[in-house]
Amino acid sequence: MRPVYLDNNATTRTDPAVVEAMLPFFSEHFGNASSTHAFGEHVGEALKKARKQLQALLGAAFDHEIIYTSGGTEADNAAILSALETQEGRDEIVTTTVEHPAILTLVAHLEKTRGIKVHLIGVDRHGRLDLDAYAKALSPKTALVSVMWANNETGTLFPVAELAEQAKAVGALFHTDAVQAVGKVAIDLKSTAIDMLSLSGHKLHGPKGIGALYVKKGVKFRPLIRGGHQERGRRGGTENVPGIIGLGAAADLALQHMEEERTRVKALRDRLEQGILQRVSNTLLNGDGDNRLPNTANIAFEYLDGEAVLHNLNKAGVAASTGSACTSGSTEPSHVLRAMNLPATALHGALRLSLSRENTGEDVDRVLEALPEIVTRLRAMSPAWLAREGADGAAVASHV
Amino acid sequence: MRPVYLDNNATTRTDPAVVEAMLPFFSEHFGNASSTHAFGEHVGEALKKARKQLQALLGAAFDHEIIYTSGGTEADNAAILSALETQEGRDEIVTTTVEHPAILTLVAHLEKTRGIKVHLIGVDRHGRLDLDAYAKALSPKTALVSVMWANNETGTLFPVAELAEQAKAVGALFHTDAVQAVGKVAIDLKSTAIDMLSLSGHKLHGPKGIGALYVKKGVKFRPLIRGGHQERGRRGGTENVPGIIGLGAAADLALQHMEEERTRVKALRDRLEQGILQRVSNTLLNGDGDNRLPNTANIAFEYLDGEAVLHNLNKAGVAASTGSACTSGSTEPSHVLRAMNLPATALHGALRLSLSRENTGEDVDRVLEALPEIVTRLRAMSPAWLAREGADGAAVASHV
Repeated sequence: MRPVYLDNNATTRTDPAVVEAMLPFFSEHFGNASSTHAFGEHVGEALKKARKQLQALLGAAFDHEIIYTSGGTEADNAAILSALETQEGRDEIVTTTVEHPAILTLVAHLEKTRGIKVHLIGVDRHGRLDLDAYAKALSPKTALVSVMWANNETGTLFPVAELAEQAKAVGALFHTDAVQAVGKVAIDLKSTAIDMLSLSGHKLHGPKGIGALYVKKGVKFRPLIRGGHQERGRRGGTENVPGIIGLGAAADLALQHMEEERTRVKALRDRLEQGILQRVSNTLLNGDGDNRLPNTANIAFEYLDGEAVLHNLNKAGVAASTGSACTSGSTEPSHVLRAMNLPATALHGALRLSLSRENTGEDVDRVLEALPEIVTRLRAMSPAWLAREGADGAAVASHV
Repeated sequence: MRPVYLDNNATTRTDPAVVEAMLPFFSEHFGNASSTHAFGEHVGEALKKARKQLQALLGAAFDHEIIYTSGGTEADNAAILSALETQEGRDEIVTTTVEHPAILTLVAHLEKTRGIKVHLIGVDRHGRLDLDAYAKALSPKTALVSVMWANNETGTLFPVAELAEQAKAVGALFHTDAVQAVGKVAIDLKSTAIDMLSLSGHKLHGPKGIGALYVKKGVKFRPLIRGGHQERGRRGGTENVPGIIGLGAAADLALQHMEEERTRVKALRDRLEQGILQRVSNTLLNGDGDNRLPNTANIAFEYLDGEAVLHNLNKAGVAASTGSACTSGSTEPSHVLRAMNLPATALHGALRLSLSRENTGEDVDRVLEALPEIVTRLRAMSPAWLAREGADGAAVASHV
């Protein structure tokens, strides 16, 4: 039986068309883009095209606003460290409790080692940002605001365009980790006050090992990685030519499939989500119901361990996640769900199902067949569930 | 006519066997290595194998001494910045005048912005390090020594094992940028005092966008890029799975071809080099004649512009370089050749021919046929050459 892949927020399958676009640049047109001979020149043309493709997906005003990086984490690190260096006299960062570890690990380190003051803005039960606390945290001391475009675990979208305007009003730079948003929702950077944006190739059916940092024209930038003159002196190191070309092809495909993401993929996700909520009792939908990525469902099963659900789903041929892959192996509940103040009964029982354009109705059917049985079986062995059943037996029994 | 590629120090063709090893990890086994489901597990096994392959090429004692990076430049930056953070009370760096820009650009920046004292040790006419100056520069203030294993322009090898022992004696960390050496000369790190070593996949027929930093067990390390738990918390960001696997395959092939590099490739290089020196007058061999990479020839043609030679070679179907690709586009003579105090008549006339195991005797013949004619033609148009001919006509005329 074909395995069902519903962990697209962790990583996506590189689209075969993307691999095809990359292939000639490994062993045929393999020149160093910085070289002046024929092997290098051909590569230069291909890189120009790829840069335009990514520019189009981002709605950036200029293609040189793109700095290629090795991925989202490098882009996030580069944005934060650059802002602290260029925003003289400002030593505060405003960010959120639900950012990716690429942001949270770094700002915690900066707080500890450089005395940077970090304001972590919280979210409500549905993962929505506390806008009052955000407005209060902004000040002439704010060097940088970094708020993710979409949360990787729940898919909740943040109003980054509005937040960027507020940051601009106090002279702060605004960065958004858009790793989960790029390719899934329409983005038009030229119409916003967003100064910097991070993205990652492998989240949009591009290859791993390539990403980009958008830096709006006019925004000062200090390189994280210094060396040769590549990327206009903003990021040293031989260009990852196949990676950049693959990211360009992936951006082009994402633009073509954007409408499908908004319609067909969203419909699949909605059917999956509603199907689970209807079939399984004591489940909670995590995240902002209305304002979410079209592909992400995050559901908590009360009185259960999400890892156990995951393991059993895996045996049934369905790959999913309990949250961010970057914190897997940890037994702690997700920092995102903790920040959302999930009830204690649900905190360990979350399952993230993240779709892509490659999923089908059959994939949804497979989950809807397998999952209710798995939950029933696991709950029958769960002391917490059984204790609860004792207390509130009748209501629950009608569901199992 | 098949083009001849003699610019392998800029970048190499990704070996088709390397591409084949990578291919399944784009669209088939595409899982995130941090994920716990089947898609991720398979990847984990493949990554373990690739790490062992690279360990074998380096002669490292432990596979976890390898931290994957996006390339040599990132590895160099990470090594230097980590050393400054971990070597408390020490604020000096000892390096050389002929390092790659990945080192020189960063240390210049650190000198300017952080008051780090940088000792730049010079080289002699043959590119050999000034060992007296090196010994004198070392002190209890030295945080880090960074000396390249092999120079990218001339191929000159530095006695890094000995230099590392001297650094150790004063408590300094020793880093080597071995981007040009790895895969070309035998390396056995476990028998040396080298603390850190940088390498790059695309210089040894692996893919672009992947490299590694070796950090000897017990050496403290501070990450350059912070985020998830990848690489034991030493480098955040989703693993570049195809890149790491490609680098492993390339390392394995390099180990298999090491003897060939030392014999057949070296013989080709020697024939190419001697052929040029015999056929063309007023040429200088740049670098340490005896102690050099087996694949690199750097020859200066007096009274000529290397760029013009390069351009004409290119038209004849031969790709080469005037020096480091990372400084191409610049009209300044190479910082390496300037550091070597080349005579003014030769400083602008350098040509770097860098071979690999993919070159053949026919490639050498092609250059030996085309090059003397090109030099003669260009010199006939060179005012500097003609002025010299007037002064010393007879001696020169016998050669042209």
